[in-house]
Amino acid sequence: MTLSNLDLVNQIDALPNAATHPEAFAKSIAGCARFVCGSHTVGYLLPIVRDALIVPALSGDWWDIQPGVITLKGDTVEERTANMAKTTQQWRQAKRFKILDGWRNEQYTIYAPRGTPLFYMERSATPLFGVIAYGAHMTVYVPKTETTPMRLWVPRRAGGKSTYPNMLDNTVAGGMGDGQTPFECIVKEAGEEASLSADYVRANARPCGTISYFYVRHADAGGEAGLLQPEVQYLYDMVVGDPDLGEGPVPAPCDSEVAEHMLLTVDEVKRELALGHFKPNCAAVVIDFFIRHGILDAENEPELQEIYTRLHRRLEFPTR
Amino acid sequence: MTLSNLDLVNQIDALPNAATHPEAFAKSIAGCARFVCGSHTVGYLLPIVRDALIVPALSGDWWDIQPGVITLKGDTVEERTANMAKTTQQWRQAKRFKILDGWRNEQYTIYAPRGTPLFYMERSATPLFGVIAYGAHMTVYVPKTETTPMRLWVPRRAGGKSTYPNMLDNTVAGGMGDGQTPFECIVKEAGEEASLSADYVRANARPCGTISYFYVRHADAGGEAGLLQPEVQYLYDMVVGDPDLGEGPVPAPCDSEVAEHMLLTVDEVKRELALGHFKPNCAAVVIDFFIRHGILDAENEPELQEIYTRLHRRLEFPTR
Repeated sequence: MTLSNLDLVNQIDALPNAATHPEAFAKSIAGCARFVCGSHTVGYLLPIVRDALIVPALSGDWWDIQPGVITLKGDTVEERTANMAKTTQQWRQAKRFKILDGWRNEQYTIYAPRGTPLFYMERSATPLFGVIAYGAHMTVYVPKTETTPMRLWVPRRAGGKSTYPNMLDNTVAGGMGDGQTPFECIVKEAGEEASLSADYVRANARPCGTISYFYVRHADAGGEAGLLQPEVQYLYDMVVGDPDLGEGPVPAPCDSEVAEHMLLTVDEVKRELALGHFKPNCAAVVIDFFIRHGILDAENEPELQEIYTRLHRRLEFPTR
Repeated sequence: MTLSNLDLVNQIDALPNAATHPEAFAKSIAGCARFVCGSHTVGYLLPIVRDALIVPALSGDWWDIQPGVITLKGDTVEERTANMAKTTQQWRQAKRFKILDGWRNEQYTIYAPRGTPLFYMERSATPLFGVIAYGAHMTVYVPKTETTPMRLWVPRRAGGKSTYPNMLDNTVAGGMGDGQTPFECIVKEAGEEASLSADYVRANARPCGTISYFYVRHADAGGEAGLLQPEVQYLYDMVVGDPDLGEGPVPAPCDSEVAEHMLLTVDEVKRELALGHFKPNCAAVVIDFFIRHGILDAENEPELQEIYTRLHRRLEFPTR
């Protein structure tokens, strides 16, 4: 069975949209509570998470529980961050949620409108609260010439990774933790994942927009299935030389996260997409790249308009 | 007063989004009827239009009127097209709506899901029915070099045009009437508006996605203010040579629609955007171009995420 580009988008933008599919949306979040902080709704809480919050030890000082609305207490960023940390640490020690086995010791930022931080929280716990997570992805490619087609540098994830082992990835990608900007994140990950020098990346990586979508986690993402994970990914493109002509730089594994880097033609990448070999959100980044670069267009992709708008979903929570 | 990029987006994406602003959306369409055809909602009908449809001569054979829902009758594309044509012709003769003074004799297509035509209708009447209109826009630019910044070819609309006289435009743009594909539309308009040869455009224009938004017409758009006009614009970029080096091609006025073509640097274009000199949906195309080309990014545009998702709105009606 091969997957269409829309099938791939459906995998990552999985929560129905309230504007276009109001009934399906209402059904999907029925039973969820709104996660409120400082008068802003910042996420949805599934029943399994709501139930874990409605215990006296937690709800007393750290949470205010009302029907359909659960509020993180605290008047300052520091207080809210501390209350969230006590909650997730308690769950971690009690082994309450499997997803917390992947504890990262990395702090993600949750925002009020206009990019004001509301609080910080452990990265691995964000899907329990349905809050927006941010990352940065870069596609490194060798442009087409008169004799060679465009080729993309595609890494294969290490077999030992806890999430999506052996799947294909974007050349460089990472989550934006600990207050990183997207560009700093890309520069750092480019060194760690692909051995690309910071100087080269700073001079050549080009920002080219974002993708955003509302992911509902699959089992192969690790942890409980069905957790809600809206995401914004900041995108970068970077041109490199043709290694067949002795040009470079050539991405190479640096840490144990990546097994190998392959230079694939556009047709080879299309084949791997259709076979479902890409990590789902990396497939979405590649599809957006193909649309921006004129490889997918209205003449060859009948679902272009749905695909492109789904990849740029306006999320209902405040964004960075 | 200067306009921010988000101000410019607010001008063209003006109907509140039901997913992110449900109350403002409900207020905006309060009093509107849904325009239904073949079991699909394809537009919103403002009270002034609904009232014009609720007259015996029209509602008898051509329209089915129910509270909140008005259906175009007809079992086939031909019947529905004929019923719509009789309606709009009658209004035109009776001088019922000012917007029909701009009658074009050009047929726009209204779609069911998956791009199946439901019916065809006169272009100038589409904003009366709140249905999606399609166009194609191309940005022609001279890439930056080590010594010169990127420059865009920007036409100034003729002073005699009925809509947006003297405003700045995208290099080539047009509505997709009479069953045109976006690429055919661009090739034709490039010749008519900018004297660019079809051969050159076919070889060099590169598709690069779409923008979509829900426009609410201003008075300077011509016709009644407040009419609803959701739009999808197919985008193309095209690189040309530097005219200062004797390269080309050089866009030049061909018909009476364009006063002149100017080659503006990115900074000059930014200034013209901020001064509100661009036609609103052309400003949106330029902003999308700036984001895709790394001129606007997360580091220099704090509203990047809202701007980019607003420019790729998933519309609630079936699209081409």
